[in-house]
Amino acid sequence: MDQVNVGLCGLGTVGTGVVKLLQSHADEIKYKVGSEIQIKKILVNDTKKKRDVIIQPEWLTDNPEELVNNPELDIIIEVMGGIEDTNLLLEKAIRNKKHIVTANKDLMAVHGQKLLRLAKENNCDILYDASVAGGIPIIRSLTEGLASDRIQKIMGIVNGTTNYILTKMTDDELAFEPVLKEAQALGFAEADPTSDVDGLDAARKMTLLANLAFKMEIGLDDVEVSGIRTISQEDITFATSLGYTIKLIGIASIHNGKVEVSVEPTLLPKDHPLALVKNEFNAVYVYGEAVGETMFYGPGAGSMPTATAVVSDLMDVVKNIRLGITGNEYVIPQYEKQLKENDEKYMQYFIRMEVDDEAGTFQNITNVFTNEKVSFQKILQLPSDKEKMAEIVMVTHKISKQQLLNSRENLKGLDVVNEIISCYRVDGED
Amino acid sequence: MDQVNVGLCGLGTVGTGVVKLLQSHADEIKYKVGSEIQIKKILVNDTKKKRDVIIQPEWLTDNPEELVNNPELDIIIEVMGGIEDTNLLLEKAIRNKKHIVTANKDLMAVHGQKLLRLAKENNCDILYDASVAGGIPIIRSLTEGLASDRIQKIMGIVNGTTNYILTKMTDDELAFEPVLKEAQALGFAEADPTSDVDGLDAARKMTLLANLAFKMEIGLDDVEVSGIRTISQEDITFATSLGYTIKLIGIASIHNGKVEVSVEPTLLPKDHPLALVKNEFNAVYVYGEAVGETMFYGPGAGSMPTATAVVSDLMDVVKNIRLGITGNEYVIPQYEKQLKENDEKYMQYFIRMEVDDEAGTFQNITNVFTNEKVSFQKILQLPSDKEKMAEIVMVTHKISKQQLLNSRENLKGLDVVNEIISCYRVDGED
Repeated sequence: MDQVNVGLCGLGTVGTGVVKLLQSHADEIKYKVGSEIQIKKILVNDTKKKRDVIIQPEWLTDNPEELVNNPELDIIIEVMGGIEDTNLLLEKAIRNKKHIVTANKDLMAVHGQKLLRLAKENNCDILYDASVAGGIPIIRSLTEGLASDRIQKIMGIVNGTTNYILTKMTDDELAFEPVLKEAQALGFAEADPTSDVDGLDAARKMTLLANLAFKMEIGLDDVEVSGIRTISQEDITFATSLGYTIKLIGIASIHNGKVEVSVEPTLLPKDHPLALVKNEFNAVYVYGEAVGETMFYGPGAGSMPTATAVVSDLMDVVKNIRLGITGNEYVIPQYEKQLKENDEKYMQYFIRMEVDDEAGTFQNITNVFTNEKVSFQKILQLPSDKEKMAEIVMVTHKISKQQLLNSRENLKGLDVVNEIISCYRVDGED
Repeated sequence: MDQVNVGLCGLGTVGTGVVKLLQSHADEIKYKVGSEIQIKKILVNDTKKKRDVIIQPEWLTDNPEELVNNPELDIIIEVMGGIEDTNLLLEKAIRNKKHIVTANKDLMAVHGQKLLRLAKENNCDILYDASVAGGIPIIRSLTEGLASDRIQKIMGIVNGTTNYILTKMTDDELAFEPVLKEAQALGFAEADPTSDVDGLDAARKMTLLANLAFKMEIGLDDVEVSGIRTISQEDITFATSLGYTIKLIGIASIHNGKVEVSVEPTLLPKDHPLALVKNEFNAVYVYGEAVGETMFYGPGAGSMPTATAVVSDLMDVVKNIRLGITGNEYVIPQYEKQLKENDEKYMQYFIRMEVDDEAGTFQNITNVFTNEKVSFQKILQLPSDKEKMAEIVMVTHKISKQQLLNSRENLKGLDVVNEIISCYRVDGED
């Protein structure tokens, strides 16, 4: 196989980067994989549009059939985004025995398991390292570098938009709304920021990582998600004064064969490696049985970082074709999905509440926690802005989620507790 | 090729880990590479010694010829250490067409280029990812994940012993000698700590990384090295009060085709990602033209982390054999070696000196720097413990190494300067 022919779906920022990389490193790539990689078709909306990259006019088409039904093509690179239509397109391509490289985490989180299974049936590869944390080779690390290890926990900052917003809120002491507006103006947040800000984007990526790490079929519905809209400047000030940084952290962990996947605002000790990941950067922390702690840090998005990941995947597909080992990406889930119950999820919690500033208040509150066998690592009480009110912030030792839920319920029943203002998990101290 | 036969040189901590991993993940490995990997011979000093791993007695031998001259073996894994004898052994193995996987950075730093060239002539692979930062797939990342990028700078904490010592000196405010003794007692430092403490071990690893990143044949002699023996508790206190952490940092950078490789104590801003790498952990920061900043963090040594890296390399060799693309590891240096001169090396510097506490002293000192066009970012003056003396700490803006050397020379000529106590570079603020 002297030449491998590629069809590219999408010629936006990532697609353009892919074309540039393939052209500028053609010799090196051929040397490394043993075959020449040739782009033959590019699917675009507008074939007449002027492009910022050197392409043959005959490559361009607005007809997807010219890619997915093209017997000349071996591999389809999908960097155009979208879920349902894109899924149909790729299904067709796979049935026509084309290998897939995609940077589309939305698609992979929703249809990934189905597509991977279909690919296996058709002896095709689907590689998707660019879909999680663009420039960081995290999927490659889970499937190759750490292949001979058992993963116990993954903690990730896998959404650049929310990390940018939280960094600005923390470092410049600004509120959520103005920072979001600034991020939108700078292009770090989209006009509709819902998917980023409410944690859905991060949840999709954590699903992909959890599936790989634990070899179970975990879906988006299995992920507990909450976003960063509720985080106030006061929360950040309290967290800082107790030595923590607030980050939106995705956690996927396994214990006794039971899994927990969640994306939530999380307080980390301010010298935890993930606490130092600033602005739009991403990082994924992996705890493996053999290797111990490792962390991968880098740009989560952007044209060239993502293109670098796409081209690396492309090179692997070409190697696999020549090795005759394609179709192995879909590892049949080795284990039945088993999720942790609330009384099996252990974590520390930061609880902030407004209470009546009067004798006996503290006694009443500690009674509630004592009944649930909850003890504390840190407690801070300050006068509130409101008259005759005080604010109490407590950081628990490790307790179960069930203990937390029970305690919150019982606190709400107390007359002296005016409001539970916020409640976040705390991790990274063990 | 249904089965690949392997000879293992060395059955110490890493060798034992390799055997365990190959046994416990045999099915998975076969699935991933398409061939079964079978250990056939193990070279040990004492064939009678009881081993902590399941092996067939007929595997063991104390005769290296049974490995390097064994027509049955396809791959030799070398995890026994040593330089000259080991080099002769591997040369023989390569001439007998055996592929090599090694964790031996001492060997690779001294004889790597020669061995890689010999391997290329014989169509053999030499993979050595385990030799730099054990559990971190950094060589893999430079050759694969970032293959389609141009590396501009690498900064690394690549020696666990010195990082452990500096962490203890900083966090527990202890002096070098007692911390070294403690590290030796705990097994984090060797009885003869010279190679670690004086920076040679780190220099070897930086040589390997620089060769890969810049495609020039850079030798150990091209690396400027200074170790951590001179760092005092006072240096650390001053650095901390100015917002810095002192780390032993290896730097390999390229500018206009000219390269600089060095290992020196370096002050980093205390929130720089490398400043947070504590104890025996390693981390490598890579700046690539396309990908931007990435960092890889993990354990730098240890049985299972290193074994994980060895087995990953082994799997790659098997794939390469089946692909028919072995012998490609040695990239003929694309560029003539060009090293930066002292007036082309730009860096910030921290200079600490003891001076006469009298009128005109500061004027005299600033005159010296002004003559060399050196300006400052931070200046701190404190009374010294000694009578009529003061200590001055200055952090320069970016200046050339030549400017630094000239300034130091001229300062020594001043009567008011009693001693230049310490001088370290400062990086990570751009």
